[in-house]
Amino acid sequence: MEPVGSLLRMSEWPARVEIGEVGPRDGLQNESMVPVADRVRLIDALSATGLRRIEAVSFVSPAAIPPMAGAADVMAGIARRPGVTYRALVPNVRGAEMALAAAVDEIEVVVSASETHNRKNVNRSVEESIVAAGELTALAHAAKTPVEGIVSTAFGCPYEGDVPEVRVAAIAAQMRDAGADRVSFGDTTGMATPRRVHTLLDVLGAVGIAPDSISLHFHNTRGTGLANVLTALGRGVTRFDASIGGLGGCPYAPGATGNIVTEDLVYMLEDMGIETGVDLDKLIACAKMAQQAVGRDLPSHVLRAGPVNWQGEGQRCAP
Amino acid sequence: MEPVGSLLRMSEWPARVEIGEVGPRDGLQNESMVPVADRVRLIDALSATGLRRIEAVSFVSPAAIPPMAGAADVMAGIARRPGVTYRALVPNVRGAEMALAAAVDEIEVVVSASETHNRKNVNRSVEESIVAAGELTALAHAAKTPVEGIVSTAFGCPYEGDVPEVRVAAIAAQMRDAGADRVSFGDTTGMATPRRVHTLLDVLGAVGIAPDSISLHFHNTRGTGLANVLTALGRGVTRFDASIGGLGGCPYAPGATGNIVTEDLVYMLEDMGIETGVDLDKLIACAKMAQQAVGRDLPSHVLRAGPVNWQGEGQRCAP
Repeated sequence: MEPVGSLLRMSEWPARVEIGEVGPRDGLQNESMVPVADRVRLIDALSATGLRRIEAVSFVSPAAIPPMAGAADVMAGIARRPGVTYRALVPNVRGAEMALAAAVDEIEVVVSASETHNRKNVNRSVEESIVAAGELTALAHAAKTPVEGIVSTAFGCPYEGDVPEVRVAAIAAQMRDAGADRVSFGDTTGMATPRRVHTLLDVLGAVGIAPDSISLHFHNTRGTGLANVLTALGRGVTRFDASIGGLGGCPYAPGATGNIVTEDLVYMLEDMGIETGVDLDKLIACAKMAQQAVGRDLPSHVLRAGPVNWQGEGQRCAP
Repeated sequence: MEPVGSLLRMSEWPARVEIGEVGPRDGLQNESMVPVADRVRLIDALSATGLRRIEAVSFVSPAAIPPMAGAADVMAGIARRPGVTYRALVPNVRGAEMALAAAVDEIEVVVSASETHNRKNVNRSVEESIVAAGELTALAHAAKTPVEGIVSTAFGCPYEGDVPEVRVAAIAAQMRDAGADRVSFGDTTGMATPRRVHTLLDVLGAVGIAPDSISLHFHNTRGTGLANVLTALGRGVTRFDASIGGLGGCPYAPGATGNIVTEDLVYMLEDMGIETGVDLDKLIACAKMAQQAVGRDLPSHVLRAGPVNWQGEGQRCAP
């Protein structure tokens, strides 16, 4: 009998994964405006599934991003569940002040690894954004609030194409040195593949940023999202963002899929024997709620197919 | 500097993967009827992309599966490209005779690993189906035509739930012993995850069926399709089925995604440095053609997002 390959490889999988739910912010940001009451209801339903990290709001200009208006009202409206971290994205010091006033549990700040993307996105150079991230971080830490620094376009840029991994790692190191409590890497437009994941993790390791210290934020724009998660899992990454129902996408690429789908991720991980702490049936109910809230079909697979459908309706699809 | 993890893992990836395109048969079987001329046009376009294996038709009762009517006309209409294997699925000896009369290059025969699924699907026991597969194989071999034996519900059954891997392996071994030139394993309703892939490959190895001798046919019903491919790649599997545009699905689970998408698979593999021999731009043109033929949006990711979109329209989606 040959050596049992799976035992070698499955032993590399972590016992537990922490999922950061980003639907209420990253997801809804790119949808038509959803009323505050519905956002509150969705966040409260998500916090009851077992998810422990929820990106709830962003404190940005309502003129720039209308669907995110009412962030303070959302934070005031939700029922804070003990043990759950409610996070807010902020673009600047003013946003951080509002987030702290709303008593968020964690602040997120984004810098793009692509100079072009950063300028188009926030009209600042990467260097200026890193300085601003440092100011934010000091402010948050003075209020005893942790900060996650997110490097976007970490696996490629829609304007510049491939982004050198050493550049991504250097920006992450600068954010860490500026006080970020954790760094995260965003596959902003879904260019990542297992090769890109391996290579970035290698370079991060070389600058002392270990897999078990980071979060990864994959999109499923080209269908590779869960393959990328699997790659990172095998390298010791245990924190991943995902979006309920696959909420999100990009207003400039109609129909393109955005974040990986929380319920698809939970289905895969739980079947792999990796604990998520999340109740899949409750999660599917949340995905239905999200679908109703935005009034369009979401790209979730498990929402359509169900977690498993044996004893079910009878499928006659061969092979 | 830490050891470079990617070099260890990427070295396990094969240099080349052979993709078996199943859209014209497995895909269209579950769609509204597409005229013979459009099926011919799609197959000819697919054969010009670099794909070397195309499941073109099935010789089944037109009463049972109307969209597959006209199989002989399709085979007579296509322009046979040298080096391309045109395959046909057949359910019985009568179908095999028609397939051989149409001069297909390879015959496929399916047996379900689930007794319930096999009975519901073809109204025969698994044992009866294996006997019939042996008769088919002898007939095909007499005409010097190779046979692929497909074990469906190999990763789970919609009626029985988990299907023991030893049962799947035993059926594969019986088909091989009955003369099948290759065996393939179908994730009929998309229950597979990386754990199930590892475990099945382990058990197959124990009965002498090596990864480099098999094909795998994954569905993306729960979003795990490419993660399953990645798992199998790392174990030495080099042959995968996929469907142009993601054609297919299941008439009994409306909206559920079917086969993994050929262009998503090619995008991932080529970016990983794994040669497919397929031209992605031509493939995307085929996916558009398939979408027009069936008159609905297909679940392809790369079709919507493009292979990569830098220098493109400008996306402003952060992070």
